[in-house]
Amino acid sequence: MIGRDIRTVETTPASLDDDRFREECGVFGVFGHPDAAATTALGLHALQHRGQEAVGVVSCDGEHFHSHRALGLVGDNFGARAVIQRLKGPIAVGHVRYSTTGEGALRNVQPFFADFAFGGMTIAHNGNLTNALAIRRELVRRGSIFHTTTDTETIIHLVATSSYSTVVDRLVDALRQIEGAYSLVAVTRRKLIGMRDPHGVRPLVLGRLDGAWVLSSESCALDIIGATFVRDIEPGELVVIDDDGLRSIKPFAKVPRRFCIFEYIYFARPDSTLEGINVYEARKRIGAELAVEAPVDADLIVPVPDSGVPAAIGFAEASGIPFELGIIRNHYIGRTFIEPSQQIRLLGVRLKHNANAARLKGKRVVLVDDSIVRGTTSVKIVEMVRHAGASEVHLRISSPPTTHSCFYGIDTPERSELLAANRNLEDMVRYIGVDSLSYISIDGLYRALGEPGRAVLRPQYCDACFTGDYPIRLTDYQEPPAERQLSLLEGEQTSRWRRSSQT
Amino acid sequence: MIGRDIRTVETTPASLDDDRFREECGVFGVFGHPDAAATTALGLHALQHRGQEAVGVVSCDGEHFHSHRALGLVGDNFGARAVIQRLKGPIAVGHVRYSTTGEGALRNVQPFFADFAFGGMTIAHNGNLTNALAIRRELVRRGSIFHTTTDTETIIHLVATSSYSTVVDRLVDALRQIEGAYSLVAVTRRKLIGMRDPHGVRPLVLGRLDGAWVLSSESCALDIIGATFVRDIEPGELVVIDDDGLRSIKPFAKVPRRFCIFEYIYFARPDSTLEGINVYEARKRIGAELAVEAPVDADLIVPVPDSGVPAAIGFAEASGIPFELGIIRNHYIGRTFIEPSQQIRLLGVRLKHNANAARLKGKRVVLVDDSIVRGTTSVKIVEMVRHAGASEVHLRISSPPTTHSCFYGIDTPERSELLAANRNLEDMVRYIGVDSLSYISIDGLYRALGEPGRAVLRPQYCDACFTGDYPIRLTDYQEPPAERQLSLLEGEQTSRWRRSSQT
Amino acid sequence: MIGRDIRTVETTPASLDDDRFREECGVFGVFGHPDAAATTALGLHALQHRGQEAVGVVSCDGEHFHSHRALGLVGDNFGARAVIQRLKGPIAVGHVRYSTTGEGALRNVQPFFADFAFGGMTIAHNGNLTNALAIRRELVRRGSIFHTTTDTETIIHLVATSSYSTVVDRLVDALRQIEGAYSLVAVTRRKLIGMRDPHGVRPLVLGRLDGAWVLSSESCALDIIGATFVRDIEPGELVVIDDDGLRSIKPFAKVPRRFCIFEYIYFARPDSTLEGINVYEARKRIGAELAVEAPVDADLIVPVPDSGVPAAIGFAEASGIPFELGIIRNHYIGRTFIEPSQQIRLLGVRLKHNANAARLKGKRVVLVDDSIVRGTTSVKIVEMVRHAGASEVHLRISSPPTTHSCFYGIDTPERSELLAANRNLEDMVRYIGVDSLSYISIDGLYRALGEPGRAVLRPQYCDACFTGDYPIRLTDYQEPPAERQLSLLEGEQTSRWRRSSQT
Amino acid sequence: MIGRDIRTVETTPASLDDDRFREECGVFGVFGHPDAAATTALGLHALQHRGQEAVGVVSCDGEHFHSHRALGLVGDNFGARAVIQRLKGPIAVGHVRYSTTGEGALRNVQPFFADFAFGGMTIAHNGNLTNALAIRRELVRRGSIFHTTTDTETIIHLVATSSYSTVVDRLVDALRQIEGAYSLVAVTRRKLIGMRDPHGVRPLVLGRLDGAWVLSSESCALDIIGATFVRDIEPGELVVIDDDGLRSIKPFAKVPRRFCIFEYIYFARPDSTLEGINVYEARKRIGAELAVEAPVDADLIVPVPDSGVPAAIGFAEASGIPFELGIIRNHYIGRTFIEPSQQIRLLGVRLKHNANAARLKGKRVVLVDDSIVRGTTSVKIVEMVRHAGASEVHLRISSPPTTHSCFYGIDTPERSELLAANRNLEDMVRYIGVDSLSYISIDGLYRALGEPGRAVLRPQYCDACFTGDYPIRLTDYQEPPAERQLSLLEGEQTSRWRRSSQT
Repeated sequence: MIGRDIRTVETTPASLDDDRFREECGVFGVFGHPDAAATTALGLHALQHRGQEAVGVVSCDGEHFHSHRALGLVGDNFGARAVIQRLKGPIAVGHVRYSTTGEGALRNVQPFFADFAFGGMTIAHNGNLTNALAIRRELVRRGSIFHTTTDTETIIHLVATSSYSTVVDRLVDALRQIEGAYSLVAVTRRKLIGMRDPHGVRPLVLGRLDGAWVLSSESCALDIIGATFVRDIEPGELVVIDDDGLRSIKPFAKVPRRFCIFEYIYFARPDSTLEGINVYEARKRIGAELAVEAPVDADLIVPVPDSGVPAAIGFAEASGIPFELGIIRNHYIGRTFIEPSQQIRLLGVRLKHNANAARLKGKRVVLVDDSIVRGTTSVKIVEMVRHAGASEVHLRISSPPTTHSCFYGIDTPERSELLAANRNLEDMVRYIGVDSLSYISIDGLYRALGEPGRAVLRPQYCDACFTGDYPIRLTDYQEPPAERQLSLLEGEQTSRWRRSSQT
Repeated sequence: MIGRDIRTVETTPASLDDDRFREECGVFGVFGHPDAAATTALGLHALQHRGQEAVGVVSCDGEHFHSHRALGLVGDNFGARAVIQRLKGPIAVGHVRYSTTGEGALRNVQPFFADFAFGGMTIAHNGNLTNALAIRRELVRRGSIFHTTTDTETIIHLVATSSYSTVVDRLVDALRQIEGAYSLVAVTRRKLIGMRDPHGVRPLVLGRLDGAWVLSSESCALDIIGATFVRDIEPGELVVIDDDGLRSIKPFAKVPRRFCIFEYIYFARPDSTLEGINVYEARKRIGAELAVEAPVDADLIVPVPDSGVPAAIGFAEASGIPFELGIIRNHYIGRTFIEPSQQIRLLGVRLKHNANAARLKGKRVVLVDDSIVRGTTSVKIVEMVRHAGASEVHLRISSPPTTHSCFYGIDTPERSELLAANRNLEDMVRYIGVDSLSYISIDGLYRALGEPGRAVLRPQYCDACFTGDYPIRLTDYQEPPAERQLSLLEGEQTSRWRRSSQT
Repeated sequence: MIGRDIRTVETTPASLDDDRFREECGVFGVFGHPDAAATTALGLHALQHRGQEAVGVVSCDGEHFHSHRALGLVGDNFGARAVIQRLKGPIAVGHVRYSTTGEGALRNVQPFFADFAFGGMTIAHNGNLTNALAIRRELVRRGSIFHTTTDTETIIHLVATSSYSTVVDRLVDALRQIEGAYSLVAVTRRKLIGMRDPHGVRPLVLGRLDGAWVLSSESCALDIIGATFVRDIEPGELVVIDDDGLRSIKPFAKVPRRFCIFEYIYFARPDSTLEGINVYEARKRIGAELAVEAPVDADLIVPVPDSGVPAAIGFAEASGIPFELGIIRNHYIGRTFIEPSQQIRLLGVRLKHNANAARLKGKRVVLVDDSIVRGTTSVKIVEMVRHAGASEVHLRISSPPTTHSCFYGIDTPERSELLAANRNLEDMVRYIGVDSLSYISIDGLYRALGEPGRAVLRPQYCDACFTGDYPIRLTDYQEPPAERQLSLLEGEQTSRWRRSSQT
Repeated sequence: MIGRDIRTVETTPASLDDDRFREECGVFGVFGHPDAAATTALGLHALQHRGQEAVGVVSCDGEHFHSHRALGLVGDNFGARAVIQRLKGPIAVGHVRYSTTGEGALRNVQPFFADFAFGGMTIAHNGNLTNALAIRRELVRRGSIFHTTTDTETIIHLVATSSYSTVVDRLVDALRQIEGAYSLVAVTRRKLIGMRDPHGVRPLVLGRLDGAWVLSSESCALDIIGATFVRDIEPGELVVIDDDGLRSIKPFAKVPRRFCIFEYIYFARPDSTLEGINVYEARKRIGAELAVEAPVDADLIVPVPDSGVPAAIGFAEASGIPFELGIIRNHYIGRTFIEPSQQIRLLGVRLKHNANAARLKGKRVVLVDDSIVRGTTSVKIVEMVRHAGASEVHLRISSPPTTHSCFYGIDTPERSELLAANRNLEDMVRYIGVDSLSYISIDGLYRALGEPGRAVLRPQYCDACFTGDYPIRLTDYQEPPAERQLSLLEGEQTSRWRRSSQT
């Protein structure tokens, strides 16, 4: 009876959240702290939601660089005393990363190190370059040997082949040739350097810990180490920190600020404050705005765990309908299960969640979620809630419909897989099986963030995934992908460069 | 600078929840299903909160028994097709277990199997026997060889040496000699057997899945496999399921029902319904009762994640004060961290949680938690909330003060470590550093469960941890512990038999 | 092209030596040494050729027993300081074991420990009992619970249920009921006990190390720790070592000595001296005797590596023909290889050996090997030597034809698989493809060991594998095997009890 | 008693052979075979003695390259069907390597791959370049980014930055700038390329397997796959194999042949035939020559296992003294042991070997070994033989005194650690504790290889380790080592570049 019918059901967080967008990286750096590496590991732990697949820390003792990089969580890799003791020195930079596969996986784990004519430098990158492939092709033609398939290595080769002499000049020279979204943290033997791209798409904040300086993708990582928030690094700003203190450079022509609006909706941790706005508050306000825009007569407001909770609280408060944890999470998730040959309806979703029938039976339920990607999970959650006896199920989404891919550092499926890019609202209602479905409007979203609405000619945020209005050129994606094998890490290269191609 | 000052900070769920009580086991059984083993693994996954350290499944194909036991989570051990395919047969029994250490750890992992004169039998146990050591001593004197340090093995030897002939008679003969709390599931070549102790301290429910029978510690495990809830197994009931259907036996003199009240407060999953009461609803009602008993003038109700959420929602609804997720969880926890030599205040608690300062600053906060064991975590959580800027912090506990150890299957510290056993309320307020502290009253707790109050002469539940009123004799704990080494698993034996001794 | 044609070729020592007999165990014990456990681990390392699959050491500090058991080699499992430091106390016993598989494998790893009414005891066993199953059946009927499938556990239950009071009396009582071949080493809180069966089939020697006593399967293990050889434990002797010194008991009726003659031919290490005869010398003398019995006109004497070397040297010296290493071993063997779809002739044997064509080409070669089991390896070695250009290949075997299975502790195939049990010499010459084949005669073998020949009525050795003359009753093998499952370790139980059944 | 006195004793082959020289690599390549990868893995298995720490295979299917690289033995890493099936294509190249440590170890595992402007190429290297650091410095100055610390990467960058257009021209251009000893095997999408340095220091042979071409460090790897030996690749020859067959190029000015004489003494496998001489025969002849040069009146010739065996056989034959295996090897070696606090004399050596006292007692013994590096092992072996009762111990070494380090691909200690570089013969006799010690003379060694003697002005072999006569410039070793960190693989870099510096 058992045999080829057996299906494996994955239960890892990654697989169960397959129907989510995913941040691709978090970066963190420390200058002038006696325990720079341990502090960096803690900071990365607080940034773990930005990448769970790999982690790396490189420290510098003024002479030598020391590195530890590994696949897996920070806390599984930086808990050995020997590891931390080897990472000597008062300067350190770290990186967490989402998804890295295959034989040479560790090779792609950041931070990267290179031995330049002027000395060693190590660099960690959050974001995505949109002309890295074009530049790479030219660099290879001139004799550069690439060892990874990441866009970050392109920056390193540009620095290496720059005709300028100081590190900072070479970095600026390299960044001037680059298009894309990036927040970078680099370390040389005597310096900690932080940079944000001219539009400031990805976040980067500055903090102080006793006398030391800290750079971090999000402010929540300052809290864990007890550091004080100083300010956001500004779009297009390059800060150079050394024994003489912090120096700020703005080497680029000023362009409009376009911070990623999705950081507020889903990516950032609720306890972070980015560009002056607390993420938890933002989500509650979006929920409240949504309650006003798309009211519904119902008995219960139920968040889709876990990211929907703040918006659901905001929705409940604004609507006066009680907030309930109607869907219960299983806190202990292993890797995989074998599904019985008599397939169990909704097994996949129930491995992680269970609708509490005692609470939902006969009730009109409003489910609040932050986004719909492919819609596959929404279908199952709604079915589970109905199966538990809800008399009506209304779905409220705290973002506008996601209709376009991101090329600035977020892992998104191609447009053909995005539900909202391929169906109208009526279709989606039918597909997901809800009594009603509403997304917040793009202007409502901007209002929740304190704007009067979206400034159409000069939008205050990058919202390309909702509008298709890409603020930065997509050079690499406007021509057919490369035919040549870039590295032995073929699988990864393919998924990186080809996946995002679009018309 | 780095050196002997380095401390390791554990971040595993176990270590961070060290200041919680812990259920010691969950059991699950299936009869008459073509995928009995896969179904059992799924059931155990839903019971994973009852034990995360070890898991075992034994199936029977009518002739032979097949077993897979391992340390770790269900989903990390039962996802290999080969494992499930090896567990052949339409009958299976499974067990999840908390904590098991050392070389021979796997030997103590249940279910246990024994080859009796009448054939093989395998047995899984949730609970704790209180005269197992006394019986063991006598059995060893007569030539029985024990191979584990668990009380479950005592049952097996009583069955083996019983003078009755049928399995069921032998089991009944064994159970008649036993004192303690237990829910057992056993499998012979043709039968699935379930039993609850006469007081019904630990839960056990019966379900149906298509034509098959299911036994489970909690009803939430029926949901995951799509089974229907039939009824609770009754206290003192023994059900024998075979090809002729289900037969119920009540071999014991009837004694008052004393279901463990803490299952409602903390142990059971909120989506389970036990003895007719939904756990989530019970927790909300306890929170509401607490709001009435111990009102407070405040701005926010904040649950201590994650178990305090339902009570906090109940408290917020009853009090009209807004519910907020003021403490944010880090969802990605690894094993350990090295703490910098410049120790970070509150690092331990911040590895898992962070107070959202933007939300708490200047606010009067009511923290709602389910219980206080040693109080060490409460101290840190309160300090973190104050550090985040709360102007007042009030703590409300949705259980009465825990003053006594449990000997019926819950892992509790000795009385000397229980905060409420050693300090009065005023002391505790000072120790924890709150502006006010209130526990729900014992009668309030019973009211929330639908009783008029605690029936002092015949309490409706086992509440020994609050009252010291132990319904079952504690034979093994009333004399000095054994001097002899029971097994090579010395460490474990020590912690089991000696830990709980009391005066 | 690649696909289902791919074959996996195993290269582990075990798989490549599949065509050898295999010793099943080695035992070692120490009394009165401050580093008893470390010393025992070293002793077991020297006995590693007697079992490579599992290893265990149990020490006793006078109060408690401490144990470490593991799958794999001694040196892979006893190199951690923490392991040795945990094995406290001046008394220790250890065991190496061949082959143990499946889930519960560790449960079958010796030494075994049991908590008796009189205190703990641990026991290690080399040999095989021939009535263990019959006794087990009776013990189970009376209520004993067995936890392994090994015959050793039968001894433990006999000790537990004995009506005598002292340990030694109970042991003697148990051994009196037992049939089979055994060398046992046991440890109680104050004693080290060694025993050999009445016929003395398996070896056991006594040594001294400073003031401490040592028991070991072979004398080579005394050398590694610098201990002095005292004497062989005598057949039927039981030595009890405690603080009062060594006491010798001979509780059994005297029966003729029947030491296993195959220990000299293949099992024991060449540097051991057993029952007064050095193994290397014995092998050389056997080789020399073989050169006299079966001379051949040839150019080179080439040993089949590695066990054939001493006999080949003896043959070469006696015949005057030069000794050459004509077959070269690969010292670095991994686990497996994938064979190309275009199958490579002789790949299996070449993974471990290569014939040196430059040396063998055109030469008349005498291959010397110690035994032929199934003959499969011999066929390939001979073909490889011919392929290398040898003009003639003569095979000389330093044992008589192996025609019967061993039931006294050696892992042998059933008779139906033994080449010499199923073919006459002429057949074998054709099957193996040699120009001539000779075995040493049984009397020649005895002569090489200093006897005038085999005493037919009262043979000086156990030579049942050559003669079928079994000195000890084979109770368990004279009736159909048990139908019942003895334990969850079903696979192992099957292979143990059923494999050896014969008519 | 146990505590800080505990010493760990390593027993891995590496550690026990610490007092040996070690080959650093073996290379293997196949062109035109349907199972190129499986065949390459088998070839590498036969070359495993040339490197046990890491192994890599890269195949090419005409379009894409596929790679599998790992730490450990070939047979532990290439036995999974999935691994071999992934390595598609009819061309493959493989590499085994000695010693590679630390985090980034896998990065240094060969073959290397690079994406050049003209397409991908992968390369495997046996040998050592003596001006790689100087070239590297210049390449970095011009903007090349190095990712490993190996000299092989220098070749790759020279190819990348060459101004020639075809692969072959670029390779020749690169090799013309390089000094050192090398045998290289490279693969492009359509070609297999083999090269030996102008002096032919390291071996490389050509074979045919059905229609396919094979390149291998040694001929023994042809035997395992059933390939036919064609010829040695000549010094300075570059062979290009593609669909049009084999083309030979000799791009360098002709210089004298200087094959490494130590390949015959110790490195190569005895069943290989290199440059027309069978290694086993060469060793026997060296032993025979040594018996003539340094005769001794003795009872036994005993080889130091295992490499001394052929020379010992040659010595025994020439001297007429019997050859005996007086030292027995333990075939089963694990990783480490804890030495008892009462240190055991000679424990280190006895973990691997035991002198057979029964054979050696009262005898005059001649030990034959192939070389003495630091002498530490010789001291212990001699002491063990004396302890076993030998009345005299004479040591005969089948190579001249090793007085200089090798810079051409063999891992040797610095001169300060070489026994013969720091003591005269008399000193060594005393240090090692022998009754006499003789090395073969340099002329005797040449005679054994069929030469009339060493041609002083134009030596027929590279014998720099005996004579200090280095045939190739040592550019990198004639100036102080680099101060700069070349890579994060700092440890390795240090040991590579600094270790060998000499005056």
